[in-house]
Amino acid sequence: MFEARLNQADIWKKVIDAIKDLVQEATLDCTENGISLQAMDNAHVSLVSLLLRSDGFETYRCDRNLSLGLNITSTSKILKCASGTDAVTLKAGDKADTLTFVFESRNQEKVSDFEIKLMDLDVDHLGIPDTDYKCVIKMPSSELQRICRDLSQIGDSVVISVAKDGVSFSSTGDLGTGNIKLSQSANADKPEESVSIEMNEAVSMTYSLHYFNIFTKATPLSSQVVLSLTENVPAVVEFNIDDLGYIRYYLAPKIEDDAD
Amino acid sequence: MFEARLNQADIWKKVIDAIKDLVQEATLDCTENGISLQAMDNAHVSLVSLLLRSDGFETYRCDRNLSLGLNITSTSKILKCASGTDAVTLKAGDKADTLTFVFESRNQEKVSDFEIKLMDLDVDHLGIPDTDYKCVIKMPSSELQRICRDLSQIGDSVVISVAKDGVSFSSTGDLGTGNIKLSQSANADKPEESVSIEMNEAVSMTYSLHYFNIFTKATPLSSQVVLSLTENVPAVVEFNIDDLGYIRYYLAPKIEDDAD
Amino acid sequence: MFEARLNQADIWKKVIDAIKDLVQEATLDCTENGISLQAMDNAHVSLVSLLLRSDGFETYRCDRNLSLGLNITSTSKILKCASGTDAVTLKAGDKADTLTFVFESRNQEKVSDFEIKLMDLDVDHLGIPDTDYKCVIKMPSSELQRICRDLSQIGDSVVISVAKDGVSFSSTGDLGTGNIKLSQSANADKPEESVSIEMNEAVSMTYSLHYFNIFTKATPLSSQVVLSLTENVPAVVEFNIDDLGYIRYYLAPKIEDDAD
Repeated sequence: MFEARLNQADIWKKVIDAIKDLVQEATLDCTENGISLQAMDNAHVSLVSLLLRSDGFETYRCDRNLSLGLNITSTSKILKCASGTDAVTLKAGDKADTLTFVFESRNQEKVSDFEIKLMDLDVDHLGIPDTDYKCVIKMPSSELQRICRDLSQIGDSVVISVAKDGVSFSSTGDLGTGNIKLSQSANADKPEESVSIEMNEAVSMTYSLHYFNIFTKATPLSSQVVLSLTENVPAVVEFNIDDLGYIRYYLAPKIEDDAD
Repeated sequence: MFEARLNQADIWKKVIDAIKDLVQEATLDCTENGISLQAMDNAHVSLVSLLLRSDGFETYRCDRNLSLGLNITSTSKILKCASGTDAVTLKAGDKADTLTFVFESRNQEKVSDFEIKLMDLDVDHLGIPDTDYKCVIKMPSSELQRICRDLSQIGDSVVISVAKDGVSFSSTGDLGTGNIKLSQSANADKPEESVSIEMNEAVSMTYSLHYFNIFTKATPLSSQVVLSLTENVPAVVEFNIDDLGYIRYYLAPKIEDDAD
Repeated sequence: MFEARLNQADIWKKVIDAIKDLVQEATLDCTENGISLQAMDNAHVSLVSLLLRSDGFETYRCDRNLSLGLNITSTSKILKCASGTDAVTLKAGDKADTLTFVFESRNQEKVSDFEIKLMDLDVDHLGIPDTDYKCVIKMPSSELQRICRDLSQIGDSVVISVAKDGVSFSSTGDLGTGNIKLSQSANADKPEESVSIEMNEAVSMTYSLHYFNIFTKATPLSSQVVLSLTENVPAVVEFNIDDLGYIRYYLAPKIEDDAD
């Protein structure tokens, strides 16, 4: 038997919103340690990796490991039926072919249960090699979202260039060029607005803006985002989920020939 | 001569919004007692019945009974031209082929008159038999709207089942099932959030969500909605309009064969 | 060398928004006196004329006259990349084939530069004859916007009729007629809500609502708009831009035959 309760449906809503534009089907892997999900997008260009640790849930029980194949679009529809402040409990039997979402309103006067059919999905767990990234940038997640959205007005790719004192995001297209520079800055009063850069080696790589725009759908989950970059290695875009875990996106850089 | 003035154009805006997705043409019947409207939707599946009593208007005069055939879509366009806080006066002569809407701003500095052409419409007044409904549910109208919208994610029909302590709304579709239960609850501080159930006999009937979603367009008119249900008899969904009257929708239940 | 700095990107955003639905390409004429733009819409029915005086800029330098041919749609995309509170500097060399927009955030931690390619555009400067208009109406710009939007529900044209004590806007269409009257009114506390009328001769002329709806995109630039009207002469719709200049639209009246 599997049962996992969170007091805020909002977290599940945001997690699924952060995934649904990238993958339409994915497997929730449930163990006593928590819930994880790993999936590549349809074009096999990027990877999303989610971890929600069991100790971050209000109550958590997983008697045996389960792989729950979910249609993410349907899951998103069901979560739209929860209020953000509802408590939400996921339930499944040990040989379940359905997963149940129970939503309870604060005052307990409204209780909803939604049962979603599970799918048989091929599961490929990809080993993600540990990497010592050359550059690690922490910045406001809303700023990254804004930059990616803005540069999409200009071109399809973004060149991210890191120097000691700042990071720049550039794009080129038919109408001209755009170049946005953020300086390293500490904001003691509002740490969520800080920009910090750890750099061992300057890095300048090109990425698809299409994918960055999808990754930044995770912005509501965390006020800060961490970009980890190394030349010719997939970038990691990580959003921390308070007390629970993280969602990470991996994206290979564009090689010169297909950069536009 | 007919003339009826309300201090709040908002009420007319909301009334027409509550009708326009159901019927495109309808007759306003004006008598000394007030204004009423009764119309079936195009598919002849549901009926809407509106009453605005003369004594709820600021001023009201109706020398002889008038039947004003209105294009509801055009009426809605004209009401969009009023501010919610404008006073609105409806005017028509005794043998009128137009109806005039006069909108006056609070400070009297803007006065608009819109004249709409009337239509010759066949009028079928349907007798609505008095029924002693087995179950009468009062609940927040916004809650009913939310439930119908949410279950539309799951299926096309809703099964409404009433028991002494609560009412449940259920739907089934390709992705799975959804079931929402509301408990009876009194809220002395916020009576508009109460759920009350009067039940003489348990009832469980199936209705089209499409029509319920249209009926709940009347939500802005009233904080509470009353559902009156009896097996195999049309349900009534009633929204009270403060000091003026009501808007009621009638919808036959789905029979087992066409329930999905 | 040309360089012009404003502390509020908002003004440029609003100026370009006020132009982009009318013309897709236009020339910025830069001199030591300021920046001007004059362009006809594609159908050659209306004319827009913009002036931003040099002394309204924080810093302004223009060594020699420049004509910068802009794609307005691209310019609008670039300005979307600025926050409203960013400072914005336009820069171009003397023989430039690009124009650079530099956006600086308040805290200086984000600096963006966007370079847009310039175009070779034919420049026809139209002489606009000085006219003593028979009627000059000052009114809240949001009220004009609302009236034009509302009457578009009724018809394609608006008849503007001016009398000493008020101005009326009328429209006729398939569903009926609409007529909106504004009275002259002074509001000492809120001068931006005043309606004032200077009239030497009564005027009643018909104009295309399509164009008036485009002109009122300039509403965010100014709380008041000035309408200058004379029979059989193009109307002027003017929005003042505080401390900087103005944007003016010219529109010929419809002649009786093509009024609808």
